[in-house]
Amino acid sequence: MGNETKIPAPTIERLAQYSRPLESLLESGTTVISSEKLARLCGVNPAQVRKDLAYFGEFGVRGVGYDVADLLAAIKKILGSDQEWALCIVGMGNLGRALVENENFKKRGYRFVAAFDSDSRRVGTRLPCGLTIQPISRLKEEVESLMVDIGVISCIPPEAQRAADLLMDAGVKAILNFSPAQVRTPECCVVQNVDFSVKLENLVYHLQKIEETGRPG
Amino acid sequence: MGNETKIPAPTIERLAQYSRPLESLLESGTTVISSEKLARLCGVNPAQVRKDLAYFGEFGVRGVGYDVADLLAAIKKILGSDQEWALCIVGMGNLGRALVENENFKKRGYRFVAAFDSDSRRVGTRLPCGLTIQPISRLKEEVESLMVDIGVISCIPPEAQRAADLLMDAGVKAILNFSPAQVRTPECCVVQNVDFSVKLENLVYHLQKIEETGRPG
Repeated sequence: MGNETKIPAPTIERLAQYSRPLESLLESGTTVISSEKLARLCGVNPAQVRKDLAYFGEFGVRGVGYDVADLLAAIKKILGSDQEWALCIVGMGNLGRALVENENFKKRGYRFVAAFDSDSRRVGTRLPCGLTIQPISRLKEEVESLMVDIGVISCIPPEAQRAADLLMDAGVKAILNFSPAQVRTPECCVVQNVDFSVKLENLVYHLQKIEETGRPG
Repeated sequence: MGNETKIPAPTIERLAQYSRPLESLLESGTTVISSEKLARLCGVNPAQVRKDLAYFGEFGVRGVGYDVADLLAAIKKILGSDQEWALCIVGMGNLGRALVENENFKKRGYRFVAAFDSDSRRVGTRLPCGLTIQPISRLKEEVESLMVDIGVISCIPPEAQRAADLLMDAGVKAILNFSPAQVRTPECCVVQNVDFSVKLENLVYHLQKIEETGRPG
C-alpha cells in the first residue's frame, strides 16, 4: 500500500478480529478460506472483508480464497502483533488482577512487566504471575528502566487521569484504559478506552430486535 | 425510520459511544453540541456522526447542532438502554468479581441478579454487591425464575460453551462473552465477544505509526 493511504480505524479493529478465527483455522490445519466463510466466522459481511483486506494489497485469489497462513502473517505484521510488547498496569483490584493473568495477552506477546497501586495495603503483594505490586511513586523509574511500551489503567475513575499523566510523563505513548473515566492525552499519544457497557448496549439493541422479530437486528 | 432499514452494526456500536460524552455534557449543563465537537469527543469524523444519526431521523439543526438531552434520550431509546435489564454471570474468578461491581453497568440499569460458578470452593461466597455465588446446577431454575435477560460469561475457556448452552437452555437470548473461547449460538440468539487483546492490537498499530511518524495512524 502507499504510505499516504489512511486506513480507517474500524478496518484496523476488524483486522484484529479477522486474525482470531484465522489462528484457529491454522491450528486445525485449514490452508485456504473464502471471504464468505471468514466473514461468517467474524460476523461481518463478505464485501466488508474484501474491502478491508484490499487496503493492504492482494491477499486473495478470486473464486478460491485466502491462504490462511499468509493472510494471518500479513495481518500480524500490519498490526504489529508479530512483536513482543512490554506492558505495565496501574490499579490492582479485581480487574487488574484478572488482566495480568489474561491468557489472550500472554499468548499474543503482550507481557506485563510491572504492576502499580496507590493503596499501600496492596503494595508488596506478590501476584501469581510473579510480579510484586509496587507503589505509584516507583512508576516513572520502573517504566523507564523496563522500557514499557503500553500502560494499562484499571484503577478507580478519580485516579485514572493522574495515572495517564504519570505514564505519559514516563514516556509511554499508548494507553489501554479500563476505567470508566475518559482520559485525555496529547496528540502524540494514543488511548483505547474499554467500556464494557458499550458492548452491553449493542447487545440489548439486538435483544430488542429478537423480541420484536425473532432475529437479531 | 422505516422498519425495513437495516442499521449497520458499527453504527449501533458508535451510538453507544456517542452517548458517553453526551451524558457528561448533560451533567455539566451543555444544551447543544455540533457534530464536529461530538465527533472529536468520540474520536470519529464529523461526517460519520451525521451519517450514523441520519439513520434515525432528524436530530440536528444544520449550522447549529444537536440538542444534547433530546439526542441522548433518542439514542437510549433506540439502543434499549433506557430500560432496566437483568443479568446473570457464570464464572466468579477475578474478572467475574470485577464485573459484578462495575459502576458503568449499575449506572446504566444493568443489574446482576445471580452469579454462578462450577468451583465448589467459590459456591456460597457472599459478594460485596450482596449476591451469593451459586452452583451451576442451579442456573436454569434461577435464570427462569429471575427472568434474566442477558448472560455474562467470565469462566475459563473450556467451560464457556457449556455455560452458553445452559444459558440458552434457560431461555437467555443475549450473551456477553468475556472468555477467550468463541461461543456458538443459534441465529435466534446474539453474542458479543469481548476480547481485550483486540483493543491491544489496535493500540500497537497506532503506536507503531507514532514511532514512525510522530502521530497515531
